[in-house]
Amino acid sequence: MSGRLTVIGLGPGNADQVTPEASRAVAEASFFYGYKPYLDRLDLRPDQTRIASDNREELSRAKDALVKAAQGHDVAVVSGGDPGVFAMAAAVCEAIEAGPAEWRAVDVAMLPGITAMLAVAARIGAPLGHDFCAISLSDNLKPWDLIELRLLAAAGAGFVIALYNPISKARPWQLGRAFECLTAILPGTTPVVFGRAAGRPDERIEVFLLADADAEKADMATCIIIGSPETRIIKRGEKPALVYTPRSAAGPRK
Amino acid sequence: MSGRLTVIGLGPGNADQVTPEASRAVAEASFFYGYKPYLDRLDLRPDQTRIASDNREELSRAKDALVKAAQGHDVAVVSGGDPGVFAMAAAVCEAIEAGPAEWRAVDVAMLPGITAMLAVAARIGAPLGHDFCAISLSDNLKPWDLIELRLLAAAGAGFVIALYNPISKARPWQLGRAFECLTAILPGTTPVVFGRAAGRPDERIEVFLLADADAEKADMATCIIIGSPETRIIKRGEKPALVYTPRSAAGPRK
Repeated sequence: MSGRLTVIGLGPGNADQVTPEASRAVAEASFFYGYKPYLDRLDLRPDQTRIASDNREELSRAKDALVKAAQGHDVAVVSGGDPGVFAMAAAVCEAIEAGPAEWRAVDVAMLPGITAMLAVAARIGAPLGHDFCAISLSDNLKPWDLIELRLLAAAGAGFVIALYNPISKARPWQLGRAFECLTAILPGTTPVVFGRAAGRPDERIEVFLLADADAEKADMATCIIIGSPETRIIKRGEKPALVYTPRSAAGPRK
Repeated sequence: MSGRLTVIGLGPGNADQVTPEASRAVAEASFFYGYKPYLDRLDLRPDQTRIASDNREELSRAKDALVKAAQGHDVAVVSGGDPGVFAMAAAVCEAIEAGPAEWRAVDVAMLPGITAMLAVAARIGAPLGHDFCAISLSDNLKPWDLIELRLLAAAGAGFVIALYNPISKARPWQLGRAFECLTAILPGTTPVVFGRAAGRPDERIEVFLLADADAEKADMATCIIIGSPETRIIKRGEKPALVYTPRSAAGPRK
């Protein structure tokens, strides 16, 4: 008998940004798998069971959840932000593809959430207002060379760039190196937004110019948005500045 | 006396995917500016006023809303999806930058929503599971050459590509041309997801291979996700196939 596995996006961390769909799925599931800080956001009943695991254990967490669902249980895997963006939805798919046939019979549903770049962008204006890309800066699962290639390709073609997983204790130099790469092809006046914990009590949103961007000011919970040459800053006196990328763009630079 | 202008993201069109934050903002505002189909999603009270405008009138809508807010009113501008992704947040910022000083004194807030690519991705698996970009295929506000340059840069560097505004009566050939461009550098077996009206009663999510992708099957409400060479399809017998991009990637192709 096959159960159900729902991968739930909890958004940036503010209860006000959790969709009703996600909240209902939390109310309905029996077993909850996730990274502990995400599970800690849930207000579970005594009949609901939580199984916490560490940050780096995504694939084994996905497998454990599929085993439980294949036994006929109603299982949730929780993610911060959107589960489809550098999060658990892909890990669950990887596990299904490599796993036993019975895992393909599990009813799987992914429920979207507000991903970090959207929350950060909203707090500062509209930096993602035109073509943009999202890059995970973690070189745990891909070679650093590929990350540099993508940074240069994206910036060279005029995309705004959102960086996820910018820095950690085990990856201390990558963000500084990314800024160096981008400085080679973007103006030093390009706006860079450091958005930490958007929508949470400890939120901190800061705007720098690329020439002054300091990787040390970021941590694991920071999403960084690097403008394109079109991105602009609107000063508003005592009100916080707005950063936005216009809806229109000029042609390729000759 | 300055009022308030809130740019509200209503998500893909399913009430279950509207955040509580957005719903509260709708309850609080007095004047609502937006494209008619988005305004039609709201259940307004008799004391709330709606001002509908056409699809292509984003800048004049933003200006009208700022005039009203600067008079001291509580004004909402509504967007489908996320207002920061090819939507009203950037138009409002453009208007503020070009407008009178009093518009900079208006309290402006953007409230994020589930954007189409996240909703479509969730319904099919995790095609945005690794580095990806979002490109508006409309050449109303940028030259077509720039769009081709971005398509090729993104596909060449291994990004998954989400296409917004893929086709309209006034832009009939652009999507077909985009598929042709991409066919030059991506395998014909690359998965392509056509996601229409995700989460709504008229939802239609279909998966093709790039070699078979037919632009005629898309309309204005379709978001198209073109995989990278790493993107995979998991067949599941009677259940719908899953499409996902693994969390890990190999190095640059030599």
